[in-house]
Amino acid sequence: MSANALLRGETIGDDIGRLMRRIGAGARAAAAQLATVPTEAKNAALHQAARNIRGRAGDILAANGRDVTAGEEKGLGKAMLDRLALDDARIEAMAGGLEDIAALADPVGAVIAEWDRPNGLHISRVRTPLGVIGVIYESRPNVTADAGALCLKAGNAAILRGGSESFHSSGVIMECLAAGLIAADLPAAAIQLVPTTDRAAVGEMLRLSEFIDVIVPRGGKSLIERITAESRVPLFQHLEGICHTYIDAAADPEMARRVAFNAKMRRTGICGATETLLIDRAIAPAVLSPIVDDLFSAGCEVRGDDATRAIDGRVLAATDEDWDTEYLDAILSVKIVDGVEAAIDHIARHSSRHTEAIITDDPAAADLFVNRIDSAILLVNASTQYADGGEFGMGAEIGISTGKLHARGPVGVEQLTSFKYVVRGSGQCRP
Amino acid sequence: MSANALLRGETIGDDIGRLMRRIGAGARAAAAQLATVPTEAKNAALHQAARNIRGRAGDILAANGRDVTAGEEKGLGKAMLDRLALDDARIEAMAGGLEDIAALADPVGAVIAEWDRPNGLHISRVRTPLGVIGVIYESRPNVTADAGALCLKAGNAAILRGGSESFHSSGVIMECLAAGLIAADLPAAAIQLVPTTDRAAVGEMLRLSEFIDVIVPRGGKSLIERITAESRVPLFQHLEGICHTYIDAAADPEMARRVAFNAKMRRTGICGATETLLIDRAIAPAVLSPIVDDLFSAGCEVRGDDATRAIDGRVLAATDEDWDTEYLDAILSVKIVDGVEAAIDHIARHSSRHTEAIITDDPAAADLFVNRIDSAILLVNASTQYADGGEFGMGAEIGISTGKLHARGPVGVEQLTSFKYVVRGSGQCRP
Repeated sequence: MSANALLRGETIGDDIGRLMRRIGAGARAAAAQLATVPTEAKNAALHQAARNIRGRAGDILAANGRDVTAGEEKGLGKAMLDRLALDDARIEAMAGGLEDIAALADPVGAVIAEWDRPNGLHISRVRTPLGVIGVIYESRPNVTADAGALCLKAGNAAILRGGSESFHSSGVIMECLAAGLIAADLPAAAIQLVPTTDRAAVGEMLRLSEFIDVIVPRGGKSLIERITAESRVPLFQHLEGICHTYIDAAADPEMARRVAFNAKMRRTGICGATETLLIDRAIAPAVLSPIVDDLFSAGCEVRGDDATRAIDGRVLAATDEDWDTEYLDAILSVKIVDGVEAAIDHIARHSSRHTEAIITDDPAAADLFVNRIDSAILLVNASTQYADGGEFGMGAEIGISTGKLHARGPVGVEQLTSFKYVVRGSGQCRP
Repeated sequence: MSANALLRGETIGDDIGRLMRRIGAGARAAAAQLATVPTEAKNAALHQAARNIRGRAGDILAANGRDVTAGEEKGLGKAMLDRLALDDARIEAMAGGLEDIAALADPVGAVIAEWDRPNGLHISRVRTPLGVIGVIYESRPNVTADAGALCLKAGNAAILRGGSESFHSSGVIMECLAAGLIAADLPAAAIQLVPTTDRAAVGEMLRLSEFIDVIVPRGGKSLIERITAESRVPLFQHLEGICHTYIDAAADPEMARRVAFNAKMRRTGICGATETLLIDRAIAPAVLSPIVDDLFSAGCEVRGDDATRAIDGRVLAATDEDWDTEYLDAILSVKIVDGVEAAIDHIARHSSRHTEAIITDDPAAADLFVNRIDSAILLVNASTQYADGGEFGMGAEIGISTGKLHARGPVGVEQLTSFKYVVRGSGQCRP
């Protein structure tokens, strides 16, 4: 009988509250052990898990087939089904992702800063694990591997609550992780997948502040809103990405055209995709139509304000709602603004404080834009699609935080740590 | 009519919920302005506020006299009245504290890290203000000045909710701060004192997650518990300080004697004061009685376990409750343990994860102690009374966090900031 089947068996005749408290207590105990395990043990578990995933690719595909069939029967949308479906390439990417995380430097024990005091005390600030991290996510089964591995690498225990759509796929992936933990002599409760699709488990998880230090919610707006409203556990906020690209009067028109197209169309379904294009009135007649040409050729719908439509009549009319919409689709809203200050004002009113870009050759406009806007990521002359932990060089990420406490922007392995102060003296007494 | 009197006037006929939302909205608007004001303006406001506090020392003392008289009539305890009472020296210390904060480096805009990516993108991580910080505190009126100034220096708007005991004192101090803000052309809502003693205002504040980014609670255990249970706004947890000093078998007995005495008795009422002394069984016969001699001479009560009392019969019997008690008084509990592992186990069960110290000449014991214990501050051969932002070289502190998210240990001006990523490119599009 597999570990996961055993876990699932536990739910029979058990109530969800008791189940979740047992999971929480197990995670807390595992976290205490994980805080001081050697890097080699964590990496060994990750490498073994990667081997297990490759070795059990057939089982994973079979389980995923059941999930996809159930999803089709439930009438899940095409985008959701695409996120859910695994194939050989995605399974290999998942295994490779675990190896990439194993290859990252271990953040635990790293000295972030150190200094001496006049009284001879030597103070150092040392990275420690956070403790227990809860992850609540929707359809993508690969999050089970990515999130579990990132938490483990940072010395944290993980409680993973996947979407019901990916229940079978995630179960087999969890078995691969669990066997990796056991092979490396790490506590089995270091990574736990909530073994029920009962939605009450999420509510229970949000109340487990005794056992969970932080919850990372990943998913659609309604999931995030529910979690934010209910949670008694601190969250790394992951709101939607209403990202803007602003083309300044001093932009290079060719660069603006290329970057705007990439920012919208490279992948429309990611949170760093640009949803609204702002164009300075002075340059709009020169840049708008070529950009619209490119977007139309790629099948993108374009909605604009009156000034946009006056320049290019092919553009549909935008409504007020458009400025506050994360399309996650091949739709772009376009607005003509009077200079960088007006762009900043629009962004202050409509942005979700995720990522914004300015295209300009004017350093003063660039500085104003990056200094004045209160978003996690601000780019100058680059595509908003770079809003990604991997692209930042952080290795994998567990998500992108739009909150300002603890983690902001891509949440990688370092953002999943805390720190402590170690003070070494020679008998100092405070006067 | 003074600014503060005007504010107080507003509450007439107003309901607390509307009042608090108006304060919150004002703070949010002020924070947007403060995020980019020059360092000089913030420092000018602080210097002017310091001058105002010196210039109005008579008014502050008169208001404080009213608070102290009311406190005596209400039957406040001696320790509470001592924290409440101001004199010329304390007023000068408050003014000097503002100047010290002005002298600190401005954290906003500092580049914490920067690196280049192979694709030519230059990424920097830049400090930003957090936004709006709420501070809920008890009797000490000087917190009004300290907390307001620290928040301002880090570019944050502050909403201060002082204890009802210090209402009049804090009101005049607030007037001094407000006049400083006005003189430096900063928004008046940058620092606001909740102008009512109605306890409902605290409940409203804890629900203002739309306007307040983080709340720093400072006060006794019951205040902290209420805030933790109710708050919808993230908190910098400030639990009690059940701090331990462990004397290892390999300790220098003379150092152990001096440091243990200082850790307990320098000031018994601060959160970094040692509450429990753990002594290795091997060294206890040599060190216990001299330490007890010193403590008795200073009027400290000593409570110990059976093993302690078998060595020194003068020690009173400790109960189980003692190991979980923050005395904040001249009382020390003492326990004999079998080596550093047993000390670590005791601390894991009873510590509030604030500060612990080991006295030892054995580097391996010291390393085990600092690596294995999950507390904010771990000291080797130094007094736990060094658990203080000033002693760490951070300048002033707004408190000491026992939480692990964002801020841990002393919360100084840097801990009151967030950061953003600024990415500069030359037209990069993500492949």
